[in-house]
Amino acid sequence: MPGVMELLPREQIAFQRMLDVIRRNDERFGFLPIETPVMELSEVLLTKTGGETERQVYFVQSTGALEKVGDGVPELALRFDLTVPLARYVAEHEHDLAFPFRRYQMQRVYRGERAQRGRFREFYQCDVDVIGKDVLSLRFDAELPALIHNIFSELAIGPFTIQVNNRKLMRGFFEGQGIVDAGRQGAVLREVDKLDKRGPEAVFETLVGPDFALSHHVAQRIMDFVKLRSGSHAQALAMLDALGTGSESFNTGIAELREVIELVRAFGVPEANYCINLSIARGLDYYTGTVYETTLNDYPQIGSICSGGRYDNLAGNYSKSHLPGVGISIGATRLFWQLREAGLLRDADSSVDVLVAMMRDQDLPDYLHLARVLRAAGINSEVQLEGRKLARQMQYADRAGIRFVVLAGEDEAARGAVTVKDLRRAQQFEVKRDELAATLKVELAQARAFAGV
Amino acid sequence: MPGVMELLPREQIAFQRMLDVIRRNDERFGFLPIETPVMELSEVLLTKTGGETERQVYFVQSTGALEKVGDGVPELALRFDLTVPLARYVAEHEHDLAFPFRRYQMQRVYRGERAQRGRFREFYQCDVDVIGKDVLSLRFDAELPALIHNIFSELAIGPFTIQVNNRKLMRGFFEGQGIVDAGRQGAVLREVDKLDKRGPEAVFETLVGPDFALSHHVAQRIMDFVKLRSGSHAQALAMLDALGTGSESFNTGIAELREVIELVRAFGVPEANYCINLSIARGLDYYTGTVYETTLNDYPQIGSICSGGRYDNLAGNYSKSHLPGVGISIGATRLFWQLREAGLLRDADSSVDVLVAMMRDQDLPDYLHLARVLRAAGINSEVQLEGRKLARQMQYADRAGIRFVVLAGEDEAARGAVTVKDLRRAQQFEVKRDELAATLKVELAQARAFAGV
Repeated sequence: MPGVMELLPREQIAFQRMLDVIRRNDERFGFLPIETPVMELSEVLLTKTGGETERQVYFVQSTGALEKVGDGVPELALRFDLTVPLARYVAEHEHDLAFPFRRYQMQRVYRGERAQRGRFREFYQCDVDVIGKDVLSLRFDAELPALIHNIFSELAIGPFTIQVNNRKLMRGFFEGQGIVDAGRQGAVLREVDKLDKRGPEAVFETLVGPDFALSHHVAQRIMDFVKLRSGSHAQALAMLDALGTGSESFNTGIAELREVIELVRAFGVPEANYCINLSIARGLDYYTGTVYETTLNDYPQIGSICSGGRYDNLAGNYSKSHLPGVGISIGATRLFWQLREAGLLRDADSSVDVLVAMMRDQDLPDYLHLARVLRAAGINSEVQLEGRKLARQMQYADRAGIRFVVLAGEDEAARGAVTVKDLRRAQQFEVKRDELAATLKVELAQARAFAGV
Repeated sequence: MPGVMELLPREQIAFQRMLDVIRRNDERFGFLPIETPVMELSEVLLTKTGGETERQVYFVQSTGALEKVGDGVPELALRFDLTVPLARYVAEHEHDLAFPFRRYQMQRVYRGERAQRGRFREFYQCDVDVIGKDVLSLRFDAELPALIHNIFSELAIGPFTIQVNNRKLMRGFFEGQGIVDAGRQGAVLREVDKLDKRGPEAVFETLVGPDFALSHHVAQRIMDFVKLRSGSHAQALAMLDALGTGSESFNTGIAELREVIELVRAFGVPEANYCINLSIARGLDYYTGTVYETTLNDYPQIGSICSGGRYDNLAGNYSKSHLPGVGISIGATRLFWQLREAGLLRDADSSVDVLVAMMRDQDLPDYLHLARVLRAAGINSEVQLEGRKLARQMQYADRAGIRFVVLAGEDEAARGAVTVKDLRRAQQFEVKRDELAATLKVELAQARAFAGV
């Protein structure tokens, strides 16, 4: 089926390890899991979305109950992101939740995209958000880069940079350039957001073209502004100082960005992994303060691998409470696909650590016993249950990425031992039966990482 | 939304731990993960299903592409189980898979059930199957009860029994009673399957009633037969011996059941955890040999918590290969719901192990440092980022189920120490800062189990 990513087991294992790394780090930072149903009421999903989203929504109906709402839209639809379901969830369970509500959610979302290479109709989003009640400290804006840093450090897919900007700063700057209408500011922001894709010349041409009709002078000032990008932490602070002062929004934006950057350092993120980049805009109107994008230094063409930002009010459509929040999202399916395309993933080892070989049919109970001991020690073990030439068993283990084959032959049995073939190191050794599990456990302890190069 | 199970974070943590136990054990036994898209082509899903299933299927369509197939059925639908997707997957990737193909899959499935307490429209299935090419040894039929045993032992929700039967034996027995038509045998099997629900009198009445028109004598023999249930392993073998011989199917069924039971013991399953029960039928026509159900001894009303069986050919509709298989399925959403209803679940601890309290605003960098050290040691830690009275911080931790609160106050700092409040034991202790992580790690090592009573 086009537009979905279906994996073979070894690929699935690699993907699962990536999800595990994300989940483990989300939990390390004290975020709590939730899951929401894949279907939501259409009226909930389509509350504040424009036509673009509606065209991409998958509607759902059971033949048993052809329930339609007023204008012929089916009652149910598949979620297209995890943010709208979060808003509905928080509004629905508001009185049972503690605020700030720190949640992570890793589920699939659905978009009726045209089938196209690298575009998915079904994909995992791994979201983390903190939702405050009435207020939410900027400290949370700084905590998320620390989480991003931990996740991508552990994934070990190469050097990366968390790029931070602030929407208030951007709007304030546009005000200073005479662009005072909020809608027009948003349009310029979305244009700036295309810088990487279209290049500075094309964006400049658009800004001075009929749609925006900015003067060359103003367009050039915008282009100069959004070019600004800090290197070190000291440079970031100096850059903010050099921006001077302007409108209230401009000054607030600078103050927020400075506080966030200072806190990001306090959270222990190395300076090499974050910077200010004034071209980070994020397309969505939704964001109101801090915005983030994360890029792989050596693979800029992959684009942002983790994005997000601060928003004023999560659930205005569903709740009377004022619920400011800040969040990030990793599009795990697309990321995995891109890492593979870029050759940044090696074949994962199997989730099976050991194959207990079948030497003689009548010794099956012994093999089963060995496997039981290994499993009790936390070692994933498959027993070769069907008789097969040993060479084929070895070949199977090799192809499947199973690292160890345990051979409990007659000779070794006489010595109370078994032979272990380590297929990764292409060597074999004999070990006492009662030391087998402990020995393999040590060997395996380091081997369970994500399959990043 | 009716018919879905949406959980609060602490419940979600308990549910997630249940899924983790299942997944971990599936992997211990060397099963490989796959995931399939939630949508399949309608023509794939509805290939061999009757009207009952079709009425329960959710169809999907995007407004952007109202794609209909011939008779007005939308092109896509949500999977209603994981078996049809497995068949499609195996047929599609046959040449890239190693057989026997051992896969586990834990995903949600969808059924347009009428809304009703305990009936779900969206629920997790946790399936394990082994698919052979042309042949598949009965040893695999015996491996699955060993896996079931490990899963439910670790879940620790009380004593359970894996009940085993064989469809060939049942069909052979019916043949011996003069019921030779396969369709009629299936109908009787489905009737027998309702024994627990309807009781023996009602089933007897149906068998002698107009639909089946069996003689009282035959109906009584069936009732006597399906009452048979073994206790110990020796009893099971004796029971099989006492059944004598009959048709070819009868004899094959007995031989298979004997071999499976012997192997289940060889796999190390304690005799208290398995038995033969000749009333286990499983409603689906799909099964052709071994069938299983698993019940909680003290909660028979919950019904089967893990069921499955052997089937002749997985993917006859999608592949020319002959692919026999055997599998089991745990309906995790329903199981979790039922365990909760039966009072068999206690509140899970939070996934957050430690709250680092906020004592003085200016010491935030120190709290962040402490959390960094704890996280690096694998301890899930939240930092109290917003200023709040200490009593409220403690109250928050207590309600959230966070076990430890770390207090890094001035007094302790002078001694190079912190105070730890252990909310579970309602006690506190002081510990050197550089011993904090190691100390808490030891305390937490045992505490991460599923929340079974």
